[in-house]
Amino acid sequence: MSEYWTDLVKSLTPYVPGAQRTGTDVVKLNTNENPYPPSPRVMQAIHSVQSDSLRRYPDPDSTQLRATLAEYHGLAIDQVFTGNGSDEILALAFMAFFKGKPALQFPQISYSFYPVYCDLLGITPNKIPLNADYTIALDKFGAASATAEGYGGIVFPNPNAPTGIAVSLAQIKALLEENLSQVVLIDEAYADFGAESAISLINNYPNLVVTRTFSKGRSLAGLRLGAAFASSPLIEGLVRTKDSFNSYPVDAVAQTAGIASIQDESYYQQTISKICHTRAQTIKRLDSLGYRVLPSQANFIFASPGDANERNNGNRNGAAEIFKALDEQNILIRYWNKPGLDNWLRITIGTDDQMEQFFKALSALN
Amino acid sequence: MSEYWTDLVKSLTPYVPGAQRTGTDVVKLNTNENPYPPSPRVMQAIHSVQSDSLRRYPDPDSTQLRATLAEYHGLAIDQVFTGNGSDEILALAFMAFFKGKPALQFPQISYSFYPVYCDLLGITPNKIPLNADYTIALDKFGAASATAEGYGGIVFPNPNAPTGIAVSLAQIKALLEENLSQVVLIDEAYADFGAESAISLINNYPNLVVTRTFSKGRSLAGLRLGAAFASSPLIEGLVRTKDSFNSYPVDAVAQTAGIASIQDESYYQQTISKICHTRAQTIKRLDSLGYRVLPSQANFIFASPGDANERNNGNRNGAAEIFKALDEQNILIRYWNKPGLDNWLRITIGTDDQMEQFFKALSALN
Repeated sequence: MSEYWTDLVKSLTPYVPGAQRTGTDVVKLNTNENPYPPSPRVMQAIHSVQSDSLRRYPDPDSTQLRATLAEYHGLAIDQVFTGNGSDEILALAFMAFFKGKPALQFPQISYSFYPVYCDLLGITPNKIPLNADYTIALDKFGAASATAEGYGGIVFPNPNAPTGIAVSLAQIKALLEENLSQVVLIDEAYADFGAESAISLINNYPNLVVTRTFSKGRSLAGLRLGAAFASSPLIEGLVRTKDSFNSYPVDAVAQTAGIASIQDESYYQQTISKICHTRAQTIKRLDSLGYRVLPSQANFIFASPGDANERNNGNRNGAAEIFKALDEQNILIRYWNKPGLDNWLRITIGTDDQMEQFFKALSALN
Repeated sequence: MSEYWTDLVKSLTPYVPGAQRTGTDVVKLNTNENPYPPSPRVMQAIHSVQSDSLRRYPDPDSTQLRATLAEYHGLAIDQVFTGNGSDEILALAFMAFFKGKPALQFPQISYSFYPVYCDLLGITPNKIPLNADYTIALDKFGAASATAEGYGGIVFPNPNAPTGIAVSLAQIKALLEENLSQVVLIDEAYADFGAESAISLINNYPNLVVTRTFSKGRSLAGLRLGAAFASSPLIEGLVRTKDSFNSYPVDAVAQTAGIASIQDESYYQQTISKICHTRAQTIKRLDSLGYRVLPSQANFIFASPGDANERNNGNRNGAAEIFKALDEQNILIRYWNKPGLDNWLRITIGTDDQMEQFFKALSALN
């Protein structure tokens, strides 16, 4: 604490990311990184970077990268925005579409970034509880749960985090139809792994924004690169906001690497397919060990050893004990000591070999 | 304009960066880029990046880079912060030290980022006019120009932009002494080129923050990398703010490149020395052509062809005409059609060859 800090910084509760412990004996299943490397084309692009593209400012509009993404998704270039990770895009979107409006609606259990940004920008959060089965209660969004002043927009991840559960395109369409006067922001950070993307709806709904990241499905967490897709007036809102605060967010190396990644579709599909296959195997094995596993469409699963009764009157370990015991063996997964989450574990899908090590350690505990 | 935009985005006046026109025949002296490439060690570091450092999240604390910077400047690692360009650090500093406090003081003619961020964060700006000779009136800062509510901090670039004029370390010391209860933020984006850095004062003043960038002296504008130096409680304020909003701002490639750049001191010194030599030659030639040139300590100069009288009753060109005529010949410099600046030109120092082309075109105009 310092006398020089603002009240804002005094009040902040910083986000604690999963530990970045490294070493050859660490099985790192705690930060939803992709276990497979980026495309060889990406490596080639980075290893061919020229000095001129470093000494000069990057193209502030990421023109080539946006054109590549537009073509890939069948959109126009003015329906595409890029940023320094999808977190930066979310921040700009909150300023462009939600600040100064009535309450912003999002799921009660969801990405921790949303309430933090509401705090910063003075937006009232309106947190909608999940259904009993941990699905997002989309039918409770919009007017159904609006405060007296109404509501100023909707944001949710699809699939949701940390549950991994996705909503269907039909549900999203219904939500968009019912909320045409508000921006609906769908955070598709994990949509590479099986959820139905709402990008296909961009041309039909002027109120829809979809954000994506290169960190998960495209194995580029180290680079910080994200994109948004929306009707051109919404994209213009993001551009105006970006250009007012920081004109050059996406660096030259990330632009080049992003283009190379999109251009290698077959590598991307192979990687996704391997992870989805390992996910299915992992869920099956956890099921057989008596865990409750939510139906994940992400590159992680959310699993619970169950309450004391389900664990033979508590003779088997609870989530906190499992987390700790695995951590001591350098098998890193994620655990939150928070109401509603404190008997659950989030496990990133690694390689088959990493999951084997995970299960070996887990089985020894039960 | 869109019905979905917030009042904030409707009210924004986006910053217009200098044109990024490219081509072999373009002489680009408009965005203060370094005309020389980054160190060969930087290129080698980027060309050796491993796929594991891309698929994983970067070290959120930039530990190695901060240790390298700390050693270079004779500070402790907890006195060093890194960010995605110095603009991002300025944004975090405004949140950490100025938001919710009384008016923030900065020079009336200065970096356009400051008033924009004041707007965003609801900080009242208190703009202090420059002296008649375009120097920053440091004696007018602090209590001398405080509003009725007092003042909440001070920020200025050293050297100032777009004038290029630096203040001395003695002046800075006096300012810090007189404002011990407020944060004084010195933006040293251009301090590589001859200004006295205030980093040497970090251990003496708990209220001092100095920001630097790798974009100018270190030829890495394409990468977006900046650093801040301050007492450890102020650095902790920046860290808390960063960790609340975006834990991973500096990507893995930028961290690696930054370390390599700092480690090649002799290359850095050679580059700086060449630019300072070319700057001296450029000022001499502009003087001899009858221009008024401010005494620059930056990698750009601010020059005026003078008023109509000085230009033989206007028979010679004014700044706007010169800017336009050079632009048509693909010689890009910077011009602002704004009160107090509209008869001035900002010219980045390029290579000797680029300056030769600039003077050839300029001489043909007079």
